[in-house]
Amino acid sequence: MQLETSSWTEVEDGAPTTALLPVGSTEQHGPHAPVGTDTIIARSIAADADRESSLDAVVLPSLPVGVAPYHGRFPGTLSVSPETLRRYVRDVVESLSETSIETVVFVNGHGGNGDTLAQLARELTESPSLDLEAYRWEWMRAVDDHVGHAGELETAVLLHLCPDDVGEPVAGDAMSWDDTVDGGTIHQFTDEFSENGAVGDATGATAEQGKRVFETVVDALVSFLERVDSSTGESDE
Amino acid sequence: MQLETSSWTEVEDGAPTTALLPVGSTEQHGPHAPVGTDTIIARSIAADADRESSLDAVVLPSLPVGVAPYHGRFPGTLSVSPETLRRYVRDVVESLSETSIETVVFVNGHGGNGDTLAQLARELTESPSLDLEAYRWEWMRAVDDHVGHAGELETAVLLHLCPDDVGEPVAGDAMSWDDTVDGGTIHQFTDEFSENGAVGDATGATAEQGKRVFETVVDALVSFLERVDSSTGESDE
Amino acid sequence: MQLETSSWTEVEDGAPTTALLPVGSTEQHGPHAPVGTDTIIARSIAADADRESSLDAVVLPSLPVGVAPYHGRFPGTLSVSPETLRRYVRDVVESLSETSIETVVFVNGHGGNGDTLAQLARELTESPSLDLEAYRWEWMRAVDDHVGHAGELETAVLLHLCPDDVGEPVAGDAMSWDDTVDGGTIHQFTDEFSENGAVGDATGATAEQGKRVFETVVDALVSFLERVDSSTGESDE
Amino acid sequence: MQLETSSWTEVEDGAPTTALLPVGSTEQHGPHAPVGTDTIIARSIAADADRESSLDAVVLPSLPVGVAPYHGRFPGTLSVSPETLRRYVRDVVESLSETSIETVVFVNGHGGNGDTLAQLARELTESPSLDLEAYRWEWMRAVDDHVGHAGELETAVLLHLCPDDVGEPVAGDAMSWDDTVDGGTIHQFTDEFSENGAVGDATGATAEQGKRVFETVVDALVSFLERVDSSTGESDE
Amino acid sequence: MQLETSSWTEVEDGAPTTALLPVGSTEQHGPHAPVGTDTIIARSIAADADRESSLDAVVLPSLPVGVAPYHGRFPGTLSVSPETLRRYVRDVVESLSETSIETVVFVNGHGGNGDTLAQLARELTESPSLDLEAYRWEWMRAVDDHVGHAGELETAVLLHLCPDDVGEPVAGDAMSWDDTVDGGTIHQFTDEFSENGAVGDATGATAEQGKRVFETVVDALVSFLERVDSSTGESDE
Amino acid sequence: MQLETSSWTEVEDGAPTTALLPVGSTEQHGPHAPVGTDTIIARSIAADADRESSLDAVVLPSLPVGVAPYHGRFPGTLSVSPETLRRYVRDVVESLSETSIETVVFVNGHGGNGDTLAQLARELTESPSLDLEAYRWEWMRAVDDHVGHAGELETAVLLHLCPDDVGEPVAGDAMSWDDTVDGGTIHQFTDEFSENGAVGDATGATAEQGKRVFETVVDALVSFLERVDSSTGESDE
Repeated sequence: MQLETSSWTEVEDGAPTTALLPVGSTEQHGPHAPVGTDTIIARSIAADADRESSLDAVVLPSLPVGVAPYHGRFPGTLSVSPETLRRYVRDVVESLSETSIETVVFVNGHGGNGDTLAQLARELTESPSLDLEAYRWEWMRAVDDHVGHAGELETAVLLHLCPDDVGEPVAGDAMSWDDTVDGGTIHQFTDEFSENGAVGDATGATAEQGKRVFETVVDALVSFLERVDSSTGESDE
Repeated sequence: MQLETSSWTEVEDGAPTTALLPVGSTEQHGPHAPVGTDTIIARSIAADADRESSLDAVVLPSLPVGVAPYHGRFPGTLSVSPETLRRYVRDVVESLSETSIETVVFVNGHGGNGDTLAQLARELTESPSLDLEAYRWEWMRAVDDHVGHAGELETAVLLHLCPDDVGEPVAGDAMSWDDTVDGGTIHQFTDEFSENGAVGDATGATAEQGKRVFETVVDALVSFLERVDSSTGESDE
Repeated sequence: MQLETSSWTEVEDGAPTTALLPVGSTEQHGPHAPVGTDTIIARSIAADADRESSLDAVVLPSLPVGVAPYHGRFPGTLSVSPETLRRYVRDVVESLSETSIETVVFVNGHGGNGDTLAQLARELTESPSLDLEAYRWEWMRAVDDHVGHAGELETAVLLHLCPDDVGEPVAGDAMSWDDTVDGGTIHQFTDEFSENGAVGDATGATAEQGKRVFETVVDALVSFLERVDSSTGESDE
Repeated sequence: MQLETSSWTEVEDGAPTTALLPVGSTEQHGPHAPVGTDTIIARSIAADADRESSLDAVVLPSLPVGVAPYHGRFPGTLSVSPETLRRYVRDVVESLSETSIETVVFVNGHGGNGDTLAQLARELTESPSLDLEAYRWEWMRAVDDHVGHAGELETAVLLHLCPDDVGEPVAGDAMSWDDTVDGGTIHQFTDEFSENGAVGDATGATAEQGKRVFETVVDALVSFLERVDSSTGESDE
Repeated sequence: MQLETSSWTEVEDGAPTTALLPVGSTEQHGPHAPVGTDTIIARSIAADADRESSLDAVVLPSLPVGVAPYHGRFPGTLSVSPETLRRYVRDVVESLSETSIETVVFVNGHGGNGDTLAQLARELTESPSLDLEAYRWEWMRAVDDHVGHAGELETAVLLHLCPDDVGEPVAGDAMSWDDTVDGGTIHQFTDEFSENGAVGDATGATAEQGKRVFETVVDALVSFLERVDSSTGESDE
Repeated sequence: MQLETSSWTEVEDGAPTTALLPVGSTEQHGPHAPVGTDTIIARSIAADADRESSLDAVVLPSLPVGVAPYHGRFPGTLSVSPETLRRYVRDVVESLSETSIETVVFVNGHGGNGDTLAQLARELTESPSLDLEAYRWEWMRAVDDHVGHAGELETAVLLHLCPDDVGEPVAGDAMSWDDTVDGGTIHQFTDEFSENGAVGDATGATAEQGKRVFETVVDALVSFLERVDSSTGESDE
C-alpha cells in the first residue's frame, strides 16, 4: 500500500503493521546518473518489497534530501545536517505512534544517512513513549559487491529502473572512495579525488545486471521485514 | 527542469536561476481524496509552471510531510513540527547558496505550512550569509473561491490530475473550518467538527472544473515567478 | 486576580483554575499609535475579562515581545522567532503544571503570534506529561469587521484605553494588507506597501466606538472562558 | 522614554543610543510580598534612571518571567530555563541591531537571571554581526548590604513603590540562603529551608528606608549608564 | 573505584550507588599555574574522596572543558557554552539511569560552571524519567577563605598536587575579581582588570598549606557524600 | 606540548599551529579491558605523536565520553548523543579561532564517534567564520587488520600501554560485529550478539604485539599531521 495515494479510510481498513520509509538523497552521481539516484532506488525497492511481501505494510512518501555535504561542490546537490534529518524522520515516526503500525523500517538509499538513521532507529526503539520498533536497512548492505558511487552496480540498477534518466555511463575519476591516508581523512569533498564525481567504472553496466541486483535486494528486504515483524516474531519465538 | 532526474552536468549546463520547492503534506483528506493530496497538487503545479515559464528554472524534489497535527487523529496523517520543517527547508535552501540560483519559491500545497514558510522566506531573504531571495507561494491563495479541505475545488483538481486515486466524492461533515467561537479556538483537532475529515461539499466536483482551476493557478505561479525573478526585476525597474 | 501583585499565599488561597496569559508585541503601529499597542490591548482585555468572569481565574504577566519581523525596518520594533516564543510560553505554562490551574488561555493581541500559539496550545493540550489544557484566543477574531493595523478599530480601542498615548490618528498608506499577488507573497516587509506603517484609515476613530468594541471582545472572552472551563464543561455536557 | 507608549516616529525622532531592558521574575516572595516583586523593582529602577539620566535612553518593556525553578514548589511561581531566557533576550537585542541603539543594559531584578544575562551580555558584545554592546546590571549588586529574599531591604523598596501590594511584613523562616553544607548544595528548593519562602526579617522595613535604598540604586544605575555610554566613552578616553 | 580503568564486570560487581563527576575547565591561570588547574584539582579531590569514603562510589572521567569565555583572550583557554555543558553532562548522567547509581555529585573545580551545574542538578533530581538524584559540589565553597584565581590557596593546592607543573608563583595584577562598578559588570573579560590573568597574590603559597587545604576540602566532600547518600539518608531520617 | 599542564604564557611562547584533540569513549570493552580503553589509547597516541612530530603542536585534554548507546546495557557505559558531541567539540574548536592554531586533528579512539567527527571536521573547515581547518583521524583506520572490540589488537595495545588495567584476556562471544542480516540491522545493542561484550579473540594478545601496533599508528598520525600542516602545504604546492 502506497500511503500517498491512499485515503485515510483505506489506511484504516488496511490497518498496516509495518511502515517502510524510503530515505534518499539529492546529490551528484557522476555525469551520467541523475542526482535523485538514491531516492529513486530506495523508493523503488520499498514499493516492490511491499508488493512482494505478505505482511500488511505501507510505504510512506520518500524523503528526498539526506546528509550529503561532501558532494556539495557539484551543482544539483542538496543536503541537510544529521540533526535536521534526525528531527524530520523522528517527527514522521512519532506521527505513527498510537496507530496500527508496530514496526518502521528505514529503506535507506544513501550511505551518508546511515549513521544518523541507525542512531535514530535505536533511540526510537528504546523510547518508552513510543509503542513501535524502528530499524535501519540499506540496499548497499544487502549486496555482496562494492557498490561505489554511480559505479557499475548502481548504474545497472538505474538502467533497469529508469533508463531514460541515465546518460552514457562513464568510468569514475576514482575507482574507490579515495579519501583516507594514514588513518586520517585527507579529502573531505568528493571533487578532491574524483573530478567527474563518479567512483567506480560504470561503462559495462547493463539493465539485465541491474534487474538481477534489484531483485536480490528486494528479496533481502522482504526477508528482513518478515524477520523483524512483531507479530511473526511473537508467534515464532 | 526536474532536479531529481537530471545529472549534475545537466544542472551545470542549465544554470537555472530560479528554484521551485514544492512543499506538501501527508494528511487525511476525507474518505475520497488521497492523504498525499497537498503534495500531489504542489508537485504538479510546480512541474507545469516550470514547463510554461520562460525562466531558467529547476523543480526541486517535493517535501512530502508538513505541519498537520490537527489531522493527527485520522490514520495516515504524518506531521512534523514547525521548527523541524523550518530546519529542513532552511538546510535545503542553504545548499543552493553559491550556485546559479538567485530566487527560491516555496510552492506550498498545505495551509498549515504557510506561516512557517513565510517566516523562513523572510529570514532567508534577509540573511547576510545567503546570496538569494526566497518567497512563499500558495495555490489556495491564487484562487478567489474558498478551497475547503477535500472540498469541491481541491477534489476537482485531483480529478484532473490523478482520477484513479480519487474515490467517490462526498460532502464533508463540515461546510467550513468550524473551530473558532467567540474569538477562541474551541476545536483543536479536525475530527471535533468533521467526522469524515472533509470540509466542503465535493459531490459536484468535475475534472473539467479541476482543469480550469489548475490552469489558473499554474498561470498565477508563472506570473509570480516572472515578477520576482531577479534578472527580470533588474532590467525592468 | 492579577498574578504580579499577589503573594503566593493569596494564590494558594484563591486556587485559580483558569490562567490567562496576555501575549502582545512591540512593533510599529503607524505614526499615531504606540508600539506597545498589542500588549496594551491584550493586557486590558484579560484584566477586564477576569473581573467580569465568575470563574476562579488569574491573569499572568503579559509577554511584551512577539513574532513581528515584518515590521522590523521601523524603529521601535522588537521581535522574537516563532521557536523562541514557543519555548518561552511553553516554559511558562509548564510552571503551572501540578498547580490548581486546569485551563490556560493565550489572550493574543498580535496576529503574528497566532500560528505559534495555536500550535503550542495543541501541543500542550495533548502532552501526556501536562495536566492542563491550553487554548488560543485572539481579540481580532472576536470582531466581525476587519481590524487592520493601527486602523480605525484598533485606534478606537486605544482611544478608549489610553488616550494620552495616542497621537493624531492618520490614514494608513495602505488600506489593506497588500502583500500578496498571484498567490505569492510579494512584499515581505510592511514598509514595502505602507510607508507610514498603518493599514486602514484611523481618522474617524472615536473613544466611544472603542469602548463598544472593547466591551464586545471582553464579553466574547468571558464567554469563551466559560465554554472551555473544565469543571463547567464536565457538569454541563 | 518608555518604548511601550511611544510611536515609531517618536522613537525615530528620539534616536536613543542606550536601551534599558528590565528583566524580572514571577516567583514567591514570602507571604507578604507580591510574586512580581523582581519585575516591579527592575521596571521602576529603569524608569527612574531613564528620567534622571541625561543620556538618550529608551526603556524596553519588562520581561516578566526569569529563571526561578527553586521557588517552583510555591504557588504563583513561573520559570523559564536559562537557555529559553537567553534565546528570548538575545532575539530582543538582535532586533535593536542596525538601529540608533549602541548600548544595551540588562536591568536585572532577580539573582537567578544573573549568570545567564552575564554570559549573554558577553556573547552579544563580542558578536561580529551585532553593532552594539550589552551589559549586565543588578540592583542587589549596587547595595552594600545583604538583600535576602522578601527581606528587610526588598520589602522596604516595595513599601516605597507599591505599598498597596505589600501585606504585613514577616520574618522569613530562614535568615540566610541556607542551602550549602560542606561545599555542596544540600537544598535545591527554597521550601526545604524556609517554609514561608522568605529569607531575612522584613518586620522592621519602612517606606522611608525603601526610598533611600531605591534612590541609591537608581543613582548607581545612572552612574553606570554614563560609564558605559559609547559616545561618552569615546570623547572621554 | 575509577571508572576509566575498570572493566564492566568490575563495575557490575562493585555496584556503586554514588557517582562523582569531576567537572573542570581549561583556562588561563596566570603565568605560573597550568591551564588545566581546575580539572586537576577537581579530579584529585574526587579520587581522594572516593578512597576515603566508606560509600560504594565510582569516579567518572573528568570533563576537561567548562564555561570560561571571560578568559578567552588568553592563549590556551577553551570554553563551551552553558547550554553545551548542560547537554553533555545531562547525557552522561542519563547514561547512569537504570544502573546501580542512585546519587550523582558534580565535583566542580571552576566557578563559571557553577550556575549551569546547579540548574542541571535540580532538573535531573526532579525529572520523573530519571531514578537518581544529582547534586552540585564546589571545592571553593568548602573553603572559608577567598580562593581568587591562581591566587595563594589555589596555587598552594597545586604545589601539593603537581609541583612540577607550577611555575614561579606571582602576584596577580588584580587582588580581587574587579569587574563590577555601581552594580554593573564593567569588565567582561579578565584581561581588562588583570593583565597577567591572576587574581590574588600567590607568592607566599606553599605545598604544606596546599596539603592542609586539600585535606580539608576532601573531608568536606566525604561528609557531603554521606549526607546525600540515599540509603544512608533513608535509614537515618 | 600538553595543554593541561602548560601555563598560558607557555602556550603563547610555543605558539603551536596544530592542535590534537583526543576523543575517546567510556564503554564496556569485554570482561578484561577497561571501559576507558578508547580514551586511554587515543590520549596515548596523541601524546606520542606530539613528541615525535617536528611540528609545533599541542595536545588538548581528552574528551572522555562519546557516542556509544549500543553498549548501554552493560554497566559502566556512558554515552552522549551525536548532536551533543558535535556541540561540545565545536565549542572547543571555536575557542581556538583567532589563536596560533591553524589545523585541528581529532584523534579518535572510538568508531561510534567517527561519523559525527567527520561531519564536524567538514563543517569547521568550510565555516567562513573560522580561520582553521579540522580533520578526522582514527587509529583503527591506520591499521590494516580488523580491530574488533576488546579483541586481539586492541587488547595488545592496552597490554603495552597499561598492563595493570587489563584483566585476563578472553575470547569474545562474537568473532565479528554480527548485527546485520539481509542488509538490515537486526541487533541494535551489543549484548544481543555478544554476551560478554567482546568481539574477537584476545587470548593471544601480547604487549610486544601491542607495542608494534602502537608505534605503527603513532607513525601514521605523525605522517598525517605533516601532510595536513598548513605551512607545509603552502610551501609544497
